[in-house]
Amino acid sequence: MIIDCDPGHDDALALLLGAGDPRLRLLGVTTVAGNQTLEKTTHNALKVLALAGVTGIPVAAGCDRPLVGELVVAANIHGVTGLDGPDVDVPVAEVAAVHAVELMRRLLADAAEPVTLIATGPLTNVALLLRRHPEVMPRIRRVVFMGGSTERGNTTPYGEFNIVTDPEAADIVLRSGLPTTMIGLNVTHQARATPEIIAEFRRMGSRLGAVCADLMTFFAGTYLREFGFPDPPVHDPVAVAAVIDASVVRTVAAPVAVELTGTHTRGATVVDLHHRTGRVANAVGVGLRVDSFWRLLMAAVRQLGGTSSHTSI
Amino acid sequence: MIIDCDPGHDDALALLLGAGDPRLRLLGVTTVAGNQTLEKTTHNALKVLALAGVTGIPVAAGCDRPLVGELVVAANIHGVTGLDGPDVDVPVAEVAAVHAVELMRRLLADAAEPVTLIATGPLTNVALLLRRHPEVMPRIRRVVFMGGSTERGNTTPYGEFNIVTDPEAADIVLRSGLPTTMIGLNVTHQARATPEIIAEFRRMGSRLGAVCADLMTFFAGTYLREFGFPDPPVHDPVAVAAVIDASVVRTVAAPVAVELTGTHTRGATVVDLHHRTGRVANAVGVGLRVDSFWRLLMAAVRQLGGTSSHTSI
Amino acid sequence: MIIDCDPGHDDALALLLGAGDPRLRLLGVTTVAGNQTLEKTTHNALKVLALAGVTGIPVAAGCDRPLVGELVVAANIHGVTGLDGPDVDVPVAEVAAVHAVELMRRLLADAAEPVTLIATGPLTNVALLLRRHPEVMPRIRRVVFMGGSTERGNTTPYGEFNIVTDPEAADIVLRSGLPTTMIGLNVTHQARATPEIIAEFRRMGSRLGAVCADLMTFFAGTYLREFGFPDPPVHDPVAVAAVIDASVVRTVAAPVAVELTGTHTRGATVVDLHHRTGRVANAVGVGLRVDSFWRLLMAAVRQLGGTSSHTSI
Amino acid sequence: MIIDCDPGHDDALALLLGAGDPRLRLLGVTTVAGNQTLEKTTHNALKVLALAGVTGIPVAAGCDRPLVGELVVAANIHGVTGLDGPDVDVPVAEVAAVHAVELMRRLLADAAEPVTLIATGPLTNVALLLRRHPEVMPRIRRVVFMGGSTERGNTTPYGEFNIVTDPEAADIVLRSGLPTTMIGLNVTHQARATPEIIAEFRRMGSRLGAVCADLMTFFAGTYLREFGFPDPPVHDPVAVAAVIDASVVRTVAAPVAVELTGTHTRGATVVDLHHRTGRVANAVGVGLRVDSFWRLLMAAVRQLGGTSSHTSI
Repeated sequence: MIIDCDPGHDDALALLLGAGDPRLRLLGVTTVAGNQTLEKTTHNALKVLALAGVTGIPVAAGCDRPLVGELVVAANIHGVTGLDGPDVDVPVAEVAAVHAVELMRRLLADAAEPVTLIATGPLTNVALLLRRHPEVMPRIRRVVFMGGSTERGNTTPYGEFNIVTDPEAADIVLRSGLPTTMIGLNVTHQARATPEIIAEFRRMGSRLGAVCADLMTFFAGTYLREFGFPDPPVHDPVAVAAVIDASVVRTVAAPVAVELTGTHTRGATVVDLHHRTGRVANAVGVGLRVDSFWRLLMAAVRQLGGTSSHTSI
Repeated sequence: MIIDCDPGHDDALALLLGAGDPRLRLLGVTTVAGNQTLEKTTHNALKVLALAGVTGIPVAAGCDRPLVGELVVAANIHGVTGLDGPDVDVPVAEVAAVHAVELMRRLLADAAEPVTLIATGPLTNVALLLRRHPEVMPRIRRVVFMGGSTERGNTTPYGEFNIVTDPEAADIVLRSGLPTTMIGLNVTHQARATPEIIAEFRRMGSRLGAVCADLMTFFAGTYLREFGFPDPPVHDPVAVAAVIDASVVRTVAAPVAVELTGTHTRGATVVDLHHRTGRVANAVGVGLRVDSFWRLLMAAVRQLGGTSSHTSI
Repeated sequence: MIIDCDPGHDDALALLLGAGDPRLRLLGVTTVAGNQTLEKTTHNALKVLALAGVTGIPVAAGCDRPLVGELVVAANIHGVTGLDGPDVDVPVAEVAAVHAVELMRRLLADAAEPVTLIATGPLTNVALLLRRHPEVMPRIRRVVFMGGSTERGNTTPYGEFNIVTDPEAADIVLRSGLPTTMIGLNVTHQARATPEIIAEFRRMGSRLGAVCADLMTFFAGTYLREFGFPDPPVHDPVAVAAVIDASVVRTVAAPVAVELTGTHTRGATVVDLHHRTGRVANAVGVGLRVDSFWRLLMAAVRQLGGTSSHTSI
Repeated sequence: MIIDCDPGHDDALALLLGAGDPRLRLLGVTTVAGNQTLEKTTHNALKVLALAGVTGIPVAAGCDRPLVGELVVAANIHGVTGLDGPDVDVPVAEVAAVHAVELMRRLLADAAEPVTLIATGPLTNVALLLRRHPEVMPRIRRVVFMGGSTERGNTTPYGEFNIVTDPEAADIVLRSGLPTTMIGLNVTHQARATPEIIAEFRRMGSRLGAVCADLMTFFAGTYLREFGFPDPPVHDPVAVAAVIDASVVRTVAAPVAVELTGTHTRGATVVDLHHRTGRVANAVGVGLRVDSFWRLLMAAVRQLGGTSSHTSI
């Protein structure tokens, strides 16, 4: 499995789940501009892995802007660094000397069997991979991405941040013919970092647990201010959880069109749940087993945190 | 109050509520193409009033197509007649000799005080009134319309039938500067004609009650087939109920933009609940007191049915 | 013939040609917001007729804004009054007590035979007539309008002012099924008010001739400033000339679509000269017999100017 | 100089001009899907170079489809092979083992000074280069592309084939900040392959001259059938000529926007000749010195043909 991300508070948890769950094999991490600039999201990815004591996973930086249009970051949600909250410093590994697209290509080419791509940021890198290296498509088992919504959005009334940031990239991925699974806001809004969840992170006693608690505390503050949500949804790790255990996210088959031309709806994922359009269906998440999700995530952080405290102290 | 409608099963209940509730004064009924052709919706409006024993209310036919584009009727939902289900014939009154827009203008001009327009079909007639007779705008207290959604649609993933049928008309009304109240699917999907509701209509013992039961039985069948809904939502009377008793529908102030240019989202009502766009706010229904709603509707049908059975048998 | 206009310097010449040519019978003049506000274009229409000594032609004011969107006037071209240039005052007739749409309806209903509508402004009034009174459509012989272009525009790169001002109205008219003739910039840019033309107006010796010369002198100044054109094109009277003498404007049959959704091209008239789209064809002007055009216009102004100077001095 | 192309009859002449003119140094040729599929355009590029006796120039195949949407080839213009007409077979060189984007990157990285990219097909490869390897942008002197129009199009009323095929790619290139020069139909329609031109090719006496004559004869047939043009415009070599001698094509500075959302105008290049939009200006060809152009092209074909006949017979 490869994780393409733009950390980001919830991307951080996605990385931890991807790195910490024993059933997954994390081959590499690639970064993209989105929640913050590419430089910051790349640093944040390295930092999260360092905090988790994860070594030996290559991290490559990818696109610093969407395919079409200008980048608009989400500093209102994720802060100036893209990972505001924890006051912790850690030496980080070197970024890979290759572009994210090239790292993905190599990992796909070298893997013994098809690989799952998990994307938790704008789909720019993945779309570029498909257009630049179409020969690797048979090596991709499926693309599971956090993005879009079957209902309302978060960046515009019907637009979710990752898709609004690069609608053309999402269109390319969704119409690529690859199996895709969309984990949208309709699912991720069920994964809320309640005070109990935050307390559970803190009770772990590890530095990593404390970092997670601090991240979620900051995140809760921005969500409350921006959306009036009391407990912030933890979007990105849900995509990883769906790969670990298919029973955690219930999906249906439904065509997903990305609105590219709307004045007020550009970047909306238009999910044809009633199969009116006759387009090819994608897999779309519609339900979450909330307890199972948190169990997976807590176990991963606990696992990494324990390891981490041993190796880093 | 004037009701502009395109009956339609739920429009029929809206007319009954408008005609039967003692707190409302129904000045006139105007019809528009939508659920079915203008000829059929006009006949259906006359038929509903006749079945209800309501006389003396002028009914005028209006636009037979949307401002822009072609008419697509909803025969899949409302049947060939637009009011399929009850097997009942009744002599109907004559349609008024004037166009719907002219009837509205006259009623507005003649009324002692500003009048509420309730629109339960595409907003073609109302938009035409505003452009053709802008001088009557101060005579309109507000426009309460059933249409749109803050969430998903019913005709397209994000588009509701009335707005999708004439998006430009909706845009004209929503940006007119008049007070508008949108009663969208997010509210009306709470008003479900359950078997208990249908049974209650039938238990009234009146012909009108039986007609309502037959209408809802047919409607339940098409909704189940088209949407997989077990109990069909009764959209249009909710707009009337919101006028009768403001406490029945909870509203918030939020700008509503109509998507006119989207490839997959034309006709979506894009409701800016978080006030990000800085546009002028409209009133948008967000909650329904379901029991209060049904009490109002049942009382009106009972009232009319009683009268009806006395006078017509 | 009825002229619907928004004077406007070239609309003024269109009115003079329409009123002064012996082969036309001008039944009425209606006004619309466009080059300037409705109040100003209406006053200007009355003023032009007064200057020409034309009496007994009803003038009715119509729509003060486009169907959809906000009005943007062309004060940069036509000045603050919409008819800047001549320093002349004249008592004007009363505007008709009915709306432009109602005047058109009555004139159409009362005429012995179908009537040609000539529109030299945004098509708002005509579109409203078609939607509000579809029953008069058989009374319309055809609609000849100045607007659009088969080539570049003047308000945006591909958009001409009249169509850009109300694209939906143009769409309604062009898809109405009525015979329509588009007189676009590709034709009218051949009708240039050269210094020789202006001198010819002035040489007439009549007040009206002097007014025309002053109008064209002002117009030449704004065109030079805005477009770098040395001699301003006299758009609107070309539409009238095409009605007087079909040989003056060469037309071809080609479908005209109005772009309603383009980000940079809204209001463009997309003329399918090679019949690729399979849409219903409209008549589209493609060539002008320039000398014949000016002969018609000069004769009309000379005819009116003579009369005018007799009656007004 | 690098030529990115999709031969294509006029691309063939562009390659010949690029390879045969002594002032240019052709570093490589890359191919893209457009006039025909990638396989065919690549083969055609190799064939043209072989016919011209040009060896040692790497040819790399690039994208087989546009960034967004499906490929629609122009078999109606260029025939089944993309280069129908001449009945000639020739052994061709091997295609490079790298992707077009990688070849461009290497050539740019290795060149002693910045390199001009000439693109005569859809801009897919160039756009992908800019997004995948933004670090090479300072190595690009400028991008000169055949595509678009300041006036009408050829594929749709306002859309030219190369831009319509991949509008997003064109948008990326035009907004990249690189110096770009657009050679649109408004210029290339002045470069017509008249019977005299075709005769001149044939009079050369070389196989290459005969091939050019056959290509233009076929091209003339399809243009006559599709557009009613008597002499087909030779689009692509004009872009090469503009690089050889800046005086051949007159350019102005004007912002070029690509219409991405229009219903009837997608892919139109909206050229703001009057600087109304305030966008950053691109260079836009507006005039052609026709005689100079043909002199350049004939000299190149004569030069290559001479060489070719010596080496190949």
